[in-house]
Amino acid sequence: MNYEVSVNIMPHQGLLDPQGKAVRQGLNKIGLNQVKDVRIGKKITMHIEALNEAEAAKIAEESCQKVLVNAVMETAEITVKELA
Amino acid sequence: MNYEVSVNIMPHQGLLDPQGKAVRQGLNKIGLNQVKDVRIGKKITMHIEALNEAEAAKIAEESCQKVLVNAVMETAEITVKELA
Repeated sequence: MNYEVSVNIMPHQGLLDPQGKAVRQGLNKIGLNQVKDVRIGKKITMHIEALNEAEAAKIAEESCQKVLVNAVMETAEITVKELA
Repeated sequence: MNYEVSVNIMPHQGLLDPQGKAVRQGLNKIGLNQVKDVRIGKKITMHIEALNEAEAAKIAEESCQKVLVNAVMETAEITVKELA
């Protein structure tokens, strides 16, 4: 079976996000003053071949732990969807 | 009113994603061969002050057009949620 896994990786809440701060200042400078707080993370989509959804989720978690996510600074959120 | 807007920005389908390809190869090399196709984009969350949801969405779209998204290479998906 084929699964589409999407992983949202954001900086931990409470942690400074200098990239987001710079973008907010940029938006404010061109007149978009309603924008107050910007945080920038990553969105990764993967296709995973697995026997079932649980196995796909396990592979995704292992990928996050070993490569995709820096657990000291980032939180990851994994969603698994079966592909038709 | 305060709104939380999240913007998912992904490379256009059909466009090469060298960063994603490198990550896929890295995952395959450490034994995660079930991972087939990786695409890497950005997830941006913003707090926006607006009178209503439509105005918040308009400000988010303007931010995307002017700063956040390179329309030649990327597709953006905006979702607006009211904050309690």
